[in-house]
Amino acid sequence: MRMFASDNASGVHPEVFRAMLAANRDHEVSYGDDIYTEQALKMFRELFGEEIMTWFVFTGTAANTLSVQSVCKSWQAVICAETAHMQVDECGAPEKFTGCKLLTVPSHDGKIHIEDILPHLTEVGFEHHVQPRVISITQPTELGTLYRLDEIEAIARFAHEHNLLLHVDGARIGNAAAALGCSFRRMTRDCGVDILSFGGTKNGMMYGEAIVFFPPHTSDDFKYIRKQSMQLASKMRFISSQFLALFGTDLWKRNADNANRMARYLAKKASKISRVEITRPVEVNAVFARIPRETIETLQESTFFYIWDETASEVRWMTSWDTTESDIDRFVELLSDIN
Amino acid sequence: MRMFASDNASGVHPEVFRAMLAANRDHEVSYGDDIYTEQALKMFRELFGEEIMTWFVFTGTAANTLSVQSVCKSWQAVICAETAHMQVDECGAPEKFTGCKLLTVPSHDGKIHIEDILPHLTEVGFEHHVQPRVISITQPTELGTLYRLDEIEAIARFAHEHNLLLHVDGARIGNAAAALGCSFRRMTRDCGVDILSFGGTKNGMMYGEAIVFFPPHTSDDFKYIRKQSMQLASKMRFISSQFLALFGTDLWKRNADNANRMARYLAKKASKISRVEITRPVEVNAVFARIPRETIETLQESTFFYIWDETASEVRWMTSWDTTESDIDRFVELLSDIN
Amino acid sequence: MRMFASDNASGVHPEVFRAMLAANRDHEVSYGDDIYTEQALKMFRELFGEEIMTWFVFTGTAANTLSVQSVCKSWQAVICAETAHMQVDECGAPEKFTGCKLLTVPSHDGKIHIEDILPHLTEVGFEHHVQPRVISITQPTELGTLYRLDEIEAIARFAHEHNLLLHVDGARIGNAAAALGCSFRRMTRDCGVDILSFGGTKNGMMYGEAIVFFPPHTSDDFKYIRKQSMQLASKMRFISSQFLALFGTDLWKRNADNANRMARYLAKKASKISRVEITRPVEVNAVFARIPRETIETLQESTFFYIWDETASEVRWMTSWDTTESDIDRFVELLSDIN
Amino acid sequence: MRMFASDNASGVHPEVFRAMLAANRDHEVSYGDDIYTEQALKMFRELFGEEIMTWFVFTGTAANTLSVQSVCKSWQAVICAETAHMQVDECGAPEKFTGCKLLTVPSHDGKIHIEDILPHLTEVGFEHHVQPRVISITQPTELGTLYRLDEIEAIARFAHEHNLLLHVDGARIGNAAAALGCSFRRMTRDCGVDILSFGGTKNGMMYGEAIVFFPPHTSDDFKYIRKQSMQLASKMRFISSQFLALFGTDLWKRNADNANRMARYLAKKASKISRVEITRPVEVNAVFARIPRETIETLQESTFFYIWDETASEVRWMTSWDTTESDIDRFVELLSDIN
Repeated sequence: MRMFASDNASGVHPEVFRAMLAANRDHEVSYGDDIYTEQALKMFRELFGEEIMTWFVFTGTAANTLSVQSVCKSWQAVICAETAHMQVDECGAPEKFTGCKLLTVPSHDGKIHIEDILPHLTEVGFEHHVQPRVISITQPTELGTLYRLDEIEAIARFAHEHNLLLHVDGARIGNAAAALGCSFRRMTRDCGVDILSFGGTKNGMMYGEAIVFFPPHTSDDFKYIRKQSMQLASKMRFISSQFLALFGTDLWKRNADNANRMARYLAKKASKISRVEITRPVEVNAVFARIPRETIETLQESTFFYIWDETASEVRWMTSWDTTESDIDRFVELLSDIN
Repeated sequence: MRMFASDNASGVHPEVFRAMLAANRDHEVSYGDDIYTEQALKMFRELFGEEIMTWFVFTGTAANTLSVQSVCKSWQAVICAETAHMQVDECGAPEKFTGCKLLTVPSHDGKIHIEDILPHLTEVGFEHHVQPRVISITQPTELGTLYRLDEIEAIARFAHEHNLLLHVDGARIGNAAAALGCSFRRMTRDCGVDILSFGGTKNGMMYGEAIVFFPPHTSDDFKYIRKQSMQLASKMRFISSQFLALFGTDLWKRNADNANRMARYLAKKASKISRVEITRPVEVNAVFARIPRETIETLQESTFFYIWDETASEVRWMTSWDTTESDIDRFVELLSDIN
Repeated sequence: MRMFASDNASGVHPEVFRAMLAANRDHEVSYGDDIYTEQALKMFRELFGEEIMTWFVFTGTAANTLSVQSVCKSWQAVICAETAHMQVDECGAPEKFTGCKLLTVPSHDGKIHIEDILPHLTEVGFEHHVQPRVISITQPTELGTLYRLDEIEAIARFAHEHNLLLHVDGARIGNAAAALGCSFRRMTRDCGVDILSFGGTKNGMMYGEAIVFFPPHTSDDFKYIRKQSMQLASKMRFISSQFLALFGTDLWKRNADNANRMARYLAKKASKISRVEITRPVEVNAVFARIPRETIETLQESTFFYIWDETASEVRWMTSWDTTESDIDRFVELLSDIN
Repeated sequence: MRMFASDNASGVHPEVFRAMLAANRDHEVSYGDDIYTEQALKMFRELFGEEIMTWFVFTGTAANTLSVQSVCKSWQAVICAETAHMQVDECGAPEKFTGCKLLTVPSHDGKIHIEDILPHLTEVGFEHHVQPRVISITQPTELGTLYRLDEIEAIARFAHEHNLLLHVDGARIGNAAAALGCSFRRMTRDCGVDILSFGGTKNGMMYGEAIVFFPPHTSDDFKYIRKQSMQLASKMRFISSQFLALFGTDLWKRNADNANRMARYLAKKASKISRVEITRPVEVNAVFARIPRETIETLQESTFFYIWDETASEVRWMTSWDTTESDIDRFVELLSDIN
């Protein structure tokens, strides 16, 4: 069965699989003291520059939560969009694990706008209120939109002026880099980003995400945080070898380009169907559409996807590294038929 | 390089790898709503009986911590041996994540003896003291010893008489079952065990552990606990297919038998060397030995292993599913030479 | 110096002080096994009915946080107004201590309106989202407004229909009861409220709040929660005797009536001054007013109060059990003079 | 009824009460911005020297827990005696609130001996183990014994050599200072202590403890920690005025001297009774005795006290600031009679 449920409904890219297989020989010291991890960490330094620190964890929720944990005390707070994965889709992991409050900012396009942050900064120094420490943005956003580089730069500047750090949830960072045609570094560190949740799974890996800390010494204690938070892989070589396969070559870009292109293809074809309305800009690999309510269930049976907004009859279709034109053609045909 | 550092220094058994590869086709709903997970959960019901609940997580530390989280409130406590992995090797994850105190029991052989539990039960109902809720034992223990079935039964009976639950840390449960020649169910559920951390990684998997709850409704909320604790795998089919490969056939037993046999072989050969003393019973796949202090570093360079007790010059050698006689012959030869 | 900063800028009512002095004789078993506590708990049963449970803690933040802790698991959530003390003024204590997320509802008058709760109930049973468990309202609200009895009944009915509990933050519950002219029980338990943070300090006590649980067995474990959360007073008789003084007679009502009446008096007199605008209904002991920005600092020097909304030049004046007409006359005179 | 249950079975010293009454006039800014708190903090600087920071909280459990919270991260640990209040009598508050593990040291006299700390320092830098950060000792100990000044100095030196901080639980610090005939400063800061839980309640106050931080900047964030941990008193002047009464004069010493003297008097008289054995040195205000098991209940009915060790038939008698010779004479008479 093919589906547009999420980019993690896809499996593992064959090149990634082959890299894991190649790493599966002989003994290696566990918990990260192996040559694959050494090489993968070196690769991240090549991607982002020399002084950074990179740490591998299992899931995107862990990457976001431990990013917060590494720099916040329990009475500090994270400012994020009301649509942020961290706020909506992590079952309260950040609060549970860090004690911190998330302060949300209203958002219509998934992005944070600086003027909406200001109300959260009025009680700095007053102990009755949590104290903002981090701004977290998602790139690309949960609504399939992209921050432009100058927008990221402006938020970073604002953050640093207010003694805040800027975190980027990059669960689909590859799709953003491919769409913007810029390097990972250009879009993050060079814009002033401090901490990056760097996604692997949705870009074709089996499991594994990275957290990249840009300012020196930001993660000096992180090895303890990772272990205590149950995110230290014993056979870590199998995460590291995946990263090497995906980001050591341009595989990440081939995968992201395909997903992004397929989203545009789907949006273009679907938009021609009457009673189907594409509701948001298609900037990466997500297509949001309003479709007739009564067609949803039938469509889901053949090609599973999620309802985004029940009330508005809005659905979300995610494309992936392995989505094909024929997947889409079949789906659009069905969509036409039942309309 | 070959090593006796830990059974997780080994890679992934080829049959496990093939099962993952076979699962790598087409799309599957993520987060566990896939057919491989359905089959793997069914397999666990076949292993342990119909009414049980099984949940997959990433690491052994997570399996232990979430076992506690699922049944304890923050003011309750876990009684475990002072040598327990939960107490010594999880960087405080149980305390951090559950709030609970671990109450330790002295142990010379890694096992808990009932008379040592009693002092922790004198303040039941008194709110100034934490209230014991769980007894946790490790099978096989961190010292390579085994609880006999009647010992487990006795602890379970004692636990239930005192309104406590019995948890088993089974990170190497396969080695125990192989050594005792009994089924997983016989050694746990049938003895009165309530919760089992069921290990996969050390028995030949790449990653993935299971938590098995025996009494009905013990884990009704567990899906929220797992997600909030950052242990919900998006592409879960790749954990499930590994469990199917390992425990759906007798592969687990072949792996465990080899590891156990190699430990006996190593102990037997090493014990013949003067100045090498095997310090503990070799019941599964761990060999503890006192060796001349000045030889340790040289040995570690060729075949890495850990020092267990610096003061006593005691080292730990772990064998694994892929340890070979020639690994051992080479090592013992070197050991002889430098003595 | 006199001030309108908060009702806790006032001291302790003399009758309360006398009761503490009377309790200061001989020895009493500590931690609540004393006769004053026995009597105070009996008094609460007389106020609210037989099956309830009452627990004393030190602060209002503790009363709210432990109310949540007693009924929520870490992956559950509390729905409250965006203006709630719990959300704004407790420095994240609920999140830190319970792990729970607070889901906020927009509010212009400090009250929750049922239609605004609904969007938080769309993901029930989906483990990626926190699961609402409690609705918390403040009576009177942080904006000095009151829920009518039928409004509380409607929210309680709604809560129970959705398997939620209703908590009331009653830090100023006396002011509400006095203003509505009804009993504590009528306004809470009889309306369907489940848990009540019952305030003492702002009504004339020195320190001490109570948590009252209405459904049987809701707080069976609370003695452990209170001790573990550092809220168990050793010389508890000095909290209990205060409650006896305040709520065992009509002292609470005399105090609340005075505070409420003084607020109306202040609002009436201040509203006659040009350039002073009373911005919200004056239903209990809070007066919100827009006054010329340049007068604020001068006023604060003689009679301290807090700025509520810097941008709107809106201030908050709280009256108390010991506020006098001459306090207000003096203040209003100054207010007139500098306008 | 008179009792030897605990020194917090006594009420409030009349001079303390008078100071509270004197503070009960007019309005004061709440949460500590009042003149009594200003004076009390100044008094602490006079007691301990200029650069220190002092914070008031409600309970001894809070003082200990927030001491840890202020300097430890969740993956760090506290080393304390197995008899420490923090380990035994705080219902797991330190673990719950800080996430930290307590590493216990065996102790026969309530004191920590340096050689017993060493085993906890063998895994520094290894992320699988919690990392010790604080040594906590109790002065006087829970067993009524005293550390000599040179013993405290030695532990402080050892702590600092190992990059650890030294915390003193001084719930009965007045009794220790009186017994040793030295100043608070001499016994703590001048010996190298870093953080002190400074007890007030057991020395004649109604409620209130202080945390004193000696090294500069150790508690820069403490105002947030105190508020978030529900320990910020709104009408703080009533804690501060008590400290002023007790420690601004020699009242603390008069109280402690009486309690200490009464303990010696009780021990001396009781020791003359056959079948009564004083089991531990009487260095402050605790007397431990082995008495015939069958007499315990009868004695408790007339003069309540706690059984310390059920098995050994050992009881604990605590004297207090208001214990009189006639209290003791009556008790000893009864004790003689029933033997």
